[in-house]
Amino acid sequence: MNIDNSLKAEILTEALPYICKFQDQKIVIKYGGHAMVNKEAKNWVAKDVVLLRFVGLNPVVVHGGGPEIDAAMKKMGKQPEFIHGLRVTDEETLDIVKMILTGKINGDIVSKLGKYGGKAIGLSGKSGYLIEARKKIQYIIKDNEKIEVDLGRVGEVERINTELIDLLLEKKYIPVISPIGIDSKGEAFNLNADIVAGDIAGAINAKKLIMITDVNGIMEDVKDPSTLFKKLTISEIEELINKGVISGGMIPKVEACINALNKGVESVHIINGKIPHSILLEIFTEKGIGTMVVRD
Amino acid sequence: MNIDNSLKAEILTEALPYICKFQDQKIVIKYGGHAMVNKEAKNWVAKDVVLLRFVGLNPVVVHGGGPEIDAAMKKMGKQPEFIHGLRVTDEETLDIVKMILTGKINGDIVSKLGKYGGKAIGLSGKSGYLIEARKKIQYIIKDNEKIEVDLGRVGEVERINTELIDLLLEKKYIPVISPIGIDSKGEAFNLNADIVAGDIAGAINAKKLIMITDVNGIMEDVKDPSTLFKKLTISEIEELINKGVISGGMIPKVEACINALNKGVESVHIINGKIPHSILLEIFTEKGIGTMVVRD
Amino acid sequence: MNIDNSLKAEILTEALPYICKFQDQKIVIKYGGHAMVNKEAKNWVAKDVVLLRFVGLNPVVVHGGGPEIDAAMKKMGKQPEFIHGLRVTDEETLDIVKMILTGKINGDIVSKLGKYGGKAIGLSGKSGYLIEARKKIQYIIKDNEKIEVDLGRVGEVERINTELIDLLLEKKYIPVISPIGIDSKGEAFNLNADIVAGDIAGAINAKKLIMITDVNGIMEDVKDPSTLFKKLTISEIEELINKGVISGGMIPKVEACINALNKGVESVHIINGKIPHSILLEIFTEKGIGTMVVRD
Amino acid sequence: MNIDNSLKAEILTEALPYICKFQDQKIVIKYGGHAMVNKEAKNWVAKDVVLLRFVGLNPVVVHGGGPEIDAAMKKMGKQPEFIHGLRVTDEETLDIVKMILTGKINGDIVSKLGKYGGKAIGLSGKSGYLIEARKKIQYIIKDNEKIEVDLGRVGEVERINTELIDLLLEKKYIPVISPIGIDSKGEAFNLNADIVAGDIAGAINAKKLIMITDVNGIMEDVKDPSTLFKKLTISEIEELINKGVISGGMIPKVEACINALNKGVESVHIINGKIPHSILLEIFTEKGIGTMVVRD
Amino acid sequence: MNIDNSLKAEILTEALPYICKFQDQKIVIKYGGHAMVNKEAKNWVAKDVVLLRFVGLNPVVVHGGGPEIDAAMKKMGKQPEFIHGLRVTDEETLDIVKMILTGKINGDIVSKLGKYGGKAIGLSGKSGYLIEARKKIQYIIKDNEKIEVDLGRVGEVERINTELIDLLLEKKYIPVISPIGIDSKGEAFNLNADIVAGDIAGAINAKKLIMITDVNGIMEDVKDPSTLFKKLTISEIEELINKGVISGGMIPKVEACINALNKGVESVHIINGKIPHSILLEIFTEKGIGTMVVRD
Amino acid sequence: MNIDNSLKAEILTEALPYICKFQDQKIVIKYGGHAMVNKEAKNWVAKDVVLLRFVGLNPVVVHGGGPEIDAAMKKMGKQPEFIHGLRVTDEETLDIVKMILTGKINGDIVSKLGKYGGKAIGLSGKSGYLIEARKKIQYIIKDNEKIEVDLGRVGEVERINTELIDLLLEKKYIPVISPIGIDSKGEAFNLNADIVAGDIAGAINAKKLIMITDVNGIMEDVKDPSTLFKKLTISEIEELINKGVISGGMIPKVEACINALNKGVESVHIINGKIPHSILLEIFTEKGIGTMVVRD
Repeated sequence: MNIDNSLKAEILTEALPYICKFQDQKIVIKYGGHAMVNKEAKNWVAKDVVLLRFVGLNPVVVHGGGPEIDAAMKKMGKQPEFIHGLRVTDEETLDIVKMILTGKINGDIVSKLGKYGGKAIGLSGKSGYLIEARKKIQYIIKDNEKIEVDLGRVGEVERINTELIDLLLEKKYIPVISPIGIDSKGEAFNLNADIVAGDIAGAINAKKLIMITDVNGIMEDVKDPSTLFKKLTISEIEELINKGVISGGMIPKVEACINALNKGVESVHIINGKIPHSILLEIFTEKGIGTMVVRD
Repeated sequence: MNIDNSLKAEILTEALPYICKFQDQKIVIKYGGHAMVNKEAKNWVAKDVVLLRFVGLNPVVVHGGGPEIDAAMKKMGKQPEFIHGLRVTDEETLDIVKMILTGKINGDIVSKLGKYGGKAIGLSGKSGYLIEARKKIQYIIKDNEKIEVDLGRVGEVERINTELIDLLLEKKYIPVISPIGIDSKGEAFNLNADIVAGDIAGAINAKKLIMITDVNGIMEDVKDPSTLFKKLTISEIEELINKGVISGGMIPKVEACINALNKGVESVHIINGKIPHSILLEIFTEKGIGTMVVRD
Repeated sequence: MNIDNSLKAEILTEALPYICKFQDQKIVIKYGGHAMVNKEAKNWVAKDVVLLRFVGLNPVVVHGGGPEIDAAMKKMGKQPEFIHGLRVTDEETLDIVKMILTGKINGDIVSKLGKYGGKAIGLSGKSGYLIEARKKIQYIIKDNEKIEVDLGRVGEVERINTELIDLLLEKKYIPVISPIGIDSKGEAFNLNADIVAGDIAGAINAKKLIMITDVNGIMEDVKDPSTLFKKLTISEIEELINKGVISGGMIPKVEACINALNKGVESVHIINGKIPHSILLEIFTEKGIGTMVVRD
Repeated sequence: MNIDNSLKAEILTEALPYICKFQDQKIVIKYGGHAMVNKEAKNWVAKDVVLLRFVGLNPVVVHGGGPEIDAAMKKMGKQPEFIHGLRVTDEETLDIVKMILTGKINGDIVSKLGKYGGKAIGLSGKSGYLIEARKKIQYIIKDNEKIEVDLGRVGEVERINTELIDLLLEKKYIPVISPIGIDSKGEAFNLNADIVAGDIAGAINAKKLIMITDVNGIMEDVKDPSTLFKKLTISEIEELINKGVISGGMIPKVEACINALNKGVESVHIINGKIPHSILLEIFTEKGIGTMVVRD
Repeated sequence: MNIDNSLKAEILTEALPYICKFQDQKIVIKYGGHAMVNKEAKNWVAKDVVLLRFVGLNPVVVHGGGPEIDAAMKKMGKQPEFIHGLRVTDEETLDIVKMILTGKINGDIVSKLGKYGGKAIGLSGKSGYLIEARKKIQYIIKDNEKIEVDLGRVGEVERINTELIDLLLEKKYIPVISPIGIDSKGEAFNLNADIVAGDIAGAINAKKLIMITDVNGIMEDVKDPSTLFKKLTISEIEELINKGVISGGMIPKVEACINALNKGVESVHIINGKIPHSILLEIFTEKGIGTMVVRD
Repeated sequence: MNIDNSLKAEILTEALPYICKFQDQKIVIKYGGHAMVNKEAKNWVAKDVVLLRFVGLNPVVVHGGGPEIDAAMKKMGKQPEFIHGLRVTDEETLDIVKMILTGKINGDIVSKLGKYGGKAIGLSGKSGYLIEARKKIQYIIKDNEKIEVDLGRVGEVERINTELIDLLLEKKYIPVISPIGIDSKGEAFNLNADIVAGDIAGAINAKKLIMITDVNGIMEDVKDPSTLFKKLTISEIEELINKGVISGGMIPKVEACINALNKGVESVHIINGKIPHSILLEIFTEKGIGTMVVRD
């Protein structure tokens, strides 16, 4: 394709100020699950993250791995079970979670980033007591009564220790973090990756949290791309939930966005990992490509 | 037990100069396999490593995991197969190796060190291109002919990139490294943990490599502890091999020792992980407890 | 204008590696004379220089000012006189040169860069003994005899003292330098800006020297843009001079290019300042926009 | 001349503690106008400033240039016009001001300092947004009414950005600053040099401001040197103005002194540039040579 | 003597956490007088102090020298005279004190520490105005009246200037300090070594003050070692004084302890210098060997 | 006394370049013996040394103390005995030497410097193994035979360890050093102060060694001050010795000068401590006041 010079000049003069603006800023990229299945998309994401690092931003990757854990469990003859979207995690399941997240997905992302020239460091939240966690107490409503259910080794974040991340970023490494937490007794916990991403983004004072998903963002009508919201505030989101525009699987996603904003992140961006180079387009163009969520 | 003060004074004045002598020195501890099965021994080793760090040495842990990988393979219906002591590693086996080493054993060591107060960081050799590797070309002799056999994804170390280890040691972290290598295309390889430990020890200019095993060291007569060699040189070892005193499974172990010495390590120590606090006794007492191997 | 996202993504992924590649590199931009007359072009150049600084490169501007000096001389009733392209410079002319270059043009560039957010520092070559010079001895051939002519206060560079430039670049300032030299007695000299630009580029180990002119570059046929040479080596240039393809006013320009390359600059770029954002297009796109000259 | 050793010893032991006391202190030297006409005096001032730098003080020179600007304007057929001592400055006049101040006088001072071994850096207030200014609103009283008059491009200081000066002083350069200001749109302004000197002295926390003039200081009777005031406070000065002892051209000068003291300078010194080495004598002897002004 | 490995392991795992805990901590060791007479004890103390330094603690030695000063005075025909335990110090006596403390004992300790590999620096309190002092005003009760007595050149500490000590500790030197103070006129004073040790310990934020004496500590019955108090608080000590358990020469000693605690030291330890390696046993074993005094 | 301003200006402009030239340079001042008896002279020297420090030079004082040691020995009933100008030093004499030098004279100099505002640090050569020494083997010629004589604890310098001096100078302390050496066994030695001064000056790369004596310098005729040599080279000195112009007590002094020059010092200055501020006059005036000795 032959692109006209004035067009190139226009795009460059548009992008360069953003590169400058976000120079040395920390950006957390949440990646995983269904957005990860496509091999080509994995390459785009990896390449974009490395380019961010190259031009002076500080990307941190947090990944999940639901579908792969499901597959591994089934292969071992265990049936995945969820309560309120949280995986019931017995000791054996926790071992599978650790092996799939840290032993497989994390390593694959590290390899991919390395292939494009990035110096990636794979870490579980146990390393350097990065993610301090405690057992999550979960309640369900049954017969109009609030009952505590035992999810097993499911935890919630108590504290993010940023020292190690900051050290690695300073030396221009790209940390790739599995959502495994640890308590003071050395016990591990299975954590929700979206929430961990927001907690980490808040703790390290990230400018942005980029949620890579398999949809274009939040839309008035999911079937009509032209109804995409470019920018929403927390209260607008709450209104959309009340109206039923945001529903189903998107609700925990936007709750994770709100968590990140409450932890101090300036903006959260829901983008579609299947669009080539969606990270670059979201960060370095004026219009962006997905939905940006900010505080009111 | 009530210990006499003059005895205490004697042991302390013996140990303190060693603490001083090894101050800020790097010590690689190879740990794994059969030495790891005993839960109490795991605690002793973890505590000793943390104490080394506490008194100013820089321990680095490299671990293996043969028995656990065998178990996992069998559980998944695969039969482990070895050629010249090297595990034949197809893609599926490599996935199991990565999951067990990085996803399980590495994390367990990190947890254990954390429990005793150490700030441990689990790393595969892929992180930060720590261990650059290439496919290992293996030959066997069959019918008097040298034939190349394909071990699959078994590799050998090409280069150790010490930048990340040095950074972590400087910040007083304890690196815990899985013997997985990576090539420039981002492909992973299964590596021999003993050799990797020696290569890392040489690359970071470690003073000592401590090989934790399940025997007391090299002995003239394996049934008679009083025949333990306190100190051997490379040429004395070669003589013992020729004489048949060193044989069987001890041969690859001493070859790994010699590899480490050739890479520049000052001394390699074969000690028994089942003796409580064998690391401390080896490093901080005049007589030591195992076999020290040095260059001629 | 609505630009397609895939187009944007393509241009960005093309440009970003260059931004990374030239990170922290020094780029000297020679600007002045006829390329400077157009007010819009002045804005483009200033904006591009500031953007280079923003994305992490270290631009240094060296300017000339022939037409403005001519105008000022005529206003004061003096007739400009040139020998071999060098301005005959008596004491009064030197005062005019200093006032126009340092007092007017330099300040205007500083203001313009400031307007776009750059922290520019205007300097004559006398500041900090930046450009040490000596009187230039010029010969002409007259009646087949080589005769020395006195050009007055015209000088040639003896030494570039880079300490001040390096200090300012380190603190992210943009130095803007007038081609005035000084000798050890504190006497000033009028210098050729193209040559000074090359000398400075060589002395500070600049990656590139960008010559902003009012033509597209070196062309086989100056009337046919499609005959532009994208890349030439020194020997190819010498051939083009011999063939008469390069002639007239372009000859001193390419001689200045060759001077820069001989001083150690990696590449010199002749570009057209009248094309919007020609600096960005030359540096951050694969094809560039003008003629790049390199050593053989 | 043969000077007795005990005399030398006395002068040295008197001077050395001052050298120590003012070690690393910043001293602003306002120089220009009528004090600058004498060539010998220029040499004395330059030599003294370089000696201050040599023995560890941090001199900063701020210069004016009224007489030279007048001369240049007349040469160009323009008649200088003043309202309340401020030069009415149309665009053409501003160009002349810039050319004379930055292009000529500043460069001459830089050369002179260089000749005595100082590393001087000439700067207009535009460089690095050193002197942020805004248009000065001036009122006159006419027919008992306060009327705003338009002085054209005459400005007043809004803010001094000290970063560049501090950087240069730290590296032992001598900044030489022309009183040209700049606003956020990149527009330049003609400023009063005495006021700028005081503003800069205050902003950089200078210990002293030395005003080099063509009189010995403030005197009860200008014709009788023995009536020189060695030290005055602001309120004593106000009394002298009320009494008519201080009058005429000395009034704006002492107002500039008071401005400097209000900006935080510890003492302002009015000295006579025509006395050889008056700067050294003022700073390094107990009695000094001119009039020192301090806060009450 | 052959010591069992499990015993060694036990002692080491007991001692190592203390080495870690006191890493980089400052420890003041008061040494002198009667505890110094035994040559073997001098070697033990010197060796222990050097070992503390070796394993990363920061020991500071403060010494006294009463018996040696008495001997020197007698040799010169002067009779030592004490009021309330303080040596009456005329000018001639002060000269003897300075010569014995700084010229003899301090140098001997420096030599001894050097012999065991320590880099010791001998200092009187005059160096670097380390110990600022003033004349001590002493009162006695005579015929029920409080009368001021002139002790001559006996002083009390006014201020400890820690800059020099901190500098030396940072460079791993062992400061050895004589209790001589200085006032602003450069006059020297004879000071009480126990009090000086506590004042220095407080000023440099020492963790511990070790008082080396010739008794085992504070005992219920001085003839029965089994009645040693392992740990006492200030109020318990006051009670023991009231009860008469602590009496005689031990009273000024415990007052010096209380002074140190009030100055901010965490614990003061009274130990017996005649027990081999009593310093190591006190600091690096759980039970210690003498009496530890702490705040309530 | 009223001193004319032009005279002051002349002296200052003469002195300031020297202050600049010797900025940060190290100057060793040898002081002691007969030059020290006069109380007023002690004040001048102390004040001058502090002023040197104030204006940015790095003075180091090395002192002797022959007359005071003689007096102390006689007081203790011992008769001083010298062989070839070296004091025969038995153990008891060594104790007296240490007490007088370190315990008395060194402390007095430290006090005096402190009184004038200097931060002086008194050190014997034992501190920090500053002066490593060995026993001096001395020969005498008796009956035409070379016989070794035992001078007891007289030593010669083996090595100067400059680390401590450099550290103290960097922090702007003035080291005051007693000529006591130490060997590896911790044994002390009595050293010649002139030689030690030269050795130290050479080891720390001092620019100058100032020998403060009680004569004006080297003179053709000691009774005629006008015959003072302002500057001599080593070979000129040797000639003067041959001619008998330099003789008696001046010979060891000039040998010490030559030792210093051979150790790398640029110039040695013999000056008269009884002339007020002779140090300042020698260093900061063009003519100086004593005799400067340099290499040929």
